[in-house]
Amino acid sequence: RINADRLWDSLMDMAKIGPGIAGGNNRQTLTDEDGEGRKLFQRWCEQADLTMAVDTMGNMFMTRPGTDPDALPVYVGSHLDTQPTGGKYDGVLGVLGGLELVRTLNDLDIKTRHPIVVVNWTNEEGTRFAPAMLASGVFAGVIEQDWAYDRTDAKGKRFGDELERIGWKGDEEVGARKMHAFFELHIEQGPILEAQKKDIGVVTHGQGLRWIQCTVTGKESHTGSTPMPMRKNAGRGLAQITELVHTIAMDNAPNAVGAIGHIDVYPNSRNIIPGKVVFTVDFRSHELDRMNGMVDRLMAEAPKLCEAIGVGFEAEIVGQFDPPEFDHNCVKAVRDAAERLGYSHMDIISGAGHDACWVNRVAPTAMVMCPCVDGLSHNEAEDISKEWAAAGVDVLMHAVVETAEV
Amino acid sequence: RINADRLWDSLMDMAKIGPGIAGGNNRQTLTDEDGEGRKLFQRWCEQADLTMAVDTMGNMFMTRPGTDPDALPVYVGSHLDTQPTGGKYDGVLGVLGGLELVRTLNDLDIKTRHPIVVVNWTNEEGTRFAPAMLASGVFAGVIEQDWAYDRTDAKGKRFGDELERIGWKGDEEVGARKMHAFFELHIEQGPILEAQKKDIGVVTHGQGLRWIQCTVTGKESHTGSTPMPMRKNAGRGLAQITELVHTIAMDNAPNAVGAIGHIDVYPNSRNIIPGKVVFTVDFRSHELDRMNGMVDRLMAEAPKLCEAIGVGFEAEIVGQFDPPEFDHNCVKAVRDAAERLGYSHMDIISGAGHDACWVNRVAPTAMVMCPCVDGLSHNEAEDISKEWAAAGVDVLMHAVVETAEV
Ligand SMILES: NC(=O)NCCC(=O)O
Ligand SMILES: NC(=O)NCCC(=O)O
Repeated sequence: RINADRLWDSLMDMAKIGPGIAGGNNRQTLTDEDGEGRKLFQRWCEQADLTMAVDTMGNMFMTRPGTDPDALPVYVGSHLDTQPTGGKYDGVLGVLGGLELVRTLNDLDIKTRHPIVVVNWTNEEGTRFAPAMLASGVFAGVIEQDWAYDRTDAKGKRFGDELERIGWKGDEEVGARKMHAFFELHIEQGPILEAQKKDIGVVTHGQGLRWIQCTVTGKESHTGSTPMPMRKNAGRGLAQITELVHTIAMDNAPNAVGAIGHIDVYPNSRNIIPGKVVFTVDFRSHELDRMNGMVDRLMAEAPKLCEAIGVGFEAEIVGQFDPPEFDHNCVKAVRDAAERLGYSHMDIISGAGHDACWVNRVAPTAMVMCPCVDGLSHNEAEDISKEWAAAGVDVLMHAVVETAEV
Repeated sequence: RINADRLWDSLMDMAKIGPGIAGGNNRQTLTDEDGEGRKLFQRWCEQADLTMAVDTMGNMFMTRPGTDPDALPVYVGSHLDTQPTGGKYDGVLGVLGGLELVRTLNDLDIKTRHPIVVVNWTNEEGTRFAPAMLASGVFAGVIEQDWAYDRTDAKGKRFGDELERIGWKGDEEVGARKMHAFFELHIEQGPILEAQKKDIGVVTHGQGLRWIQCTVTGKESHTGSTPMPMRKNAGRGLAQITELVHTIAMDNAPNAVGAIGHIDVYPNSRNIIPGKVVFTVDFRSHELDRMNGMVDRLMAEAPKLCEAIGVGFEAEIVGQFDPPEFDHNCVKAVRDAAERLGYSHMDIISGAGHDACWVNRVAPTAMVMCPCVDGLSHNEAEDISKEWAAAGVDVLMHAVVETAEV
């Protein structure tokens, strides 16, 4: 079993970097705070005798050698970046859980045949630079590195420039290394495990995702002096599409979800009818056909709604991945570990996207989930118990060690 | 008649300060650009032998002496600040038109019994610091100066601090000076004069205004992993209230208008269900009871819509004025001037709020309007012809001179 107190202390120490305003964190990718968090993780890893490599996307690989020089490493990890108003565990638990399992193996002087590598993937959240899971996507060969470098944040800063600015652009070629397996521990970010009173979620599948960035174009004009019939109010396009997205999601629930989280209004002045609204629809389902059908319905109905009120509609996919199915052997290793350790568990579908979803394309992959209070995540109030965290890392360790062979 | 070319050149020179991105202007109040625009106006006024006074709200008063030392001045002017994506004429025409009529009187060596004072009112637009017409409101005694100083912009900067920073906080007590009369020339910002092929609008009344800032509170949570029934999506509150505002306005058209122009979504991330949306409803009518009835209906129906989807609703009035009726003698002076000069004209209600609406409370006041292309304003594409501008300033000059007595 791992050391729950040591794990918890590390989680709390990391949370001091980029604190939020309501008890959570704002440690968005490629900010100074992200740089500081990486440095702390690096120090801890070096104290645990891991050696560091960093690739050209800023992904950090911290290696514990194995006994067989020819064996490919077993990877374990997640991400240290957070939402602008994020929690202390989303991503962080998976990285520091990886570190904790190495510390425990060191304490017990357990050697494995395969090396174990703890990973911190860059820009999982995708808030500052869309899409999410950007660097694991490049690693898995589904996203071009040059395209990733050209992603810009709301202030127009480039991903590539910001990666250099914080000093974490490494020189290892991204995606060059091969994996024996990859395991990611993550909080559920949903309410199912807590409601079912299960310690462990054995993740068999994930939801796919489509981010559709929409632009509704009306005509900026004076709110007081423009007669009602002359208006082209882009805000009404947003309003009607918000409800359309909700209807489409409800019509496909419980096998899909959908909402609009990002909305920019131009010029955003109290006495100007919005001339343009840009917003992103997020649709998800673990059924590919269903998810594509939802996008098709949006693309068919939204332009009609907009036409009826005299505004234009354009849409562009800015993030997407298909529903992943995780590797049967790795999933079995997770389930067997939970069983062996006596933790209650259930098979579960991941509602969120994770780096594991991309890595799954290039290596046998599985995920371990632990509950979070009220299913709340992407909120500073996100919370877990020390016991949940410890159970998750225990299961992670046993699955990893079994796969890495003692 | 005034010098149309000189007027136009001054308009174009002023538009060079704080240029927009699409041919208009971004010279928002109390920015460095506002300071620069004021300096240019001051230089032009001093070249025309006007003497400057500045009050503690930054209102600029440029005086041309009269022949009777006991006669109160006739005031003429408008505002030099613009919307973030504003036009070159909204406000500016009224200030530089005042300057042009003084220049013309100087050319013709015409003296008036009453002094003539050209005014630039601070923060008419109200985009950076709500409400609009802030400094004329303090001048008219309907807004407290300390409250005005405490208004903050989106970055949390205080009006009072920014006024000092740009060096335009004067020492004259605001509202201390008395007026014989006030005239404001402004572009219509609506389509009526152009459609009716009239050179001049004789403004008899204005619309009243209510700015209702609404806060819808839901619960930030993960867009992918929060099941549909557990969501409290503040964006849906915005959507439904957007349509409610439109319906209320349509039910009262053509005697009222309404829309939402300002919307801030928190935390505004693609994969987070909005936990909070703050937005401002702008309702207007020239009928007081109608306008108040519209607000009452919003306040009755919006909370019910929000309750039905599990989100909270709060509202606060952040700007308001009642429909003004302008002074009969001053209005007659404008109508007579248009008639005498042979310009086609019609009586009209101002759709927008203007500094004249506040000054009307403390001095006999009237407004002159000239058409603008397609009724478009609060848009960088706002446009007028040199002939329209000249006709407006001609009528303004004759009304002012008649009132100031040769
Ligand atoms: N786990 C997580 O929040 N990932 C971000 C990508 C997503 O929106 O699912
Ligand atoms: N004229 C003008 O645009 N004034 C700003 C106040 C308003 O919204 O009416």
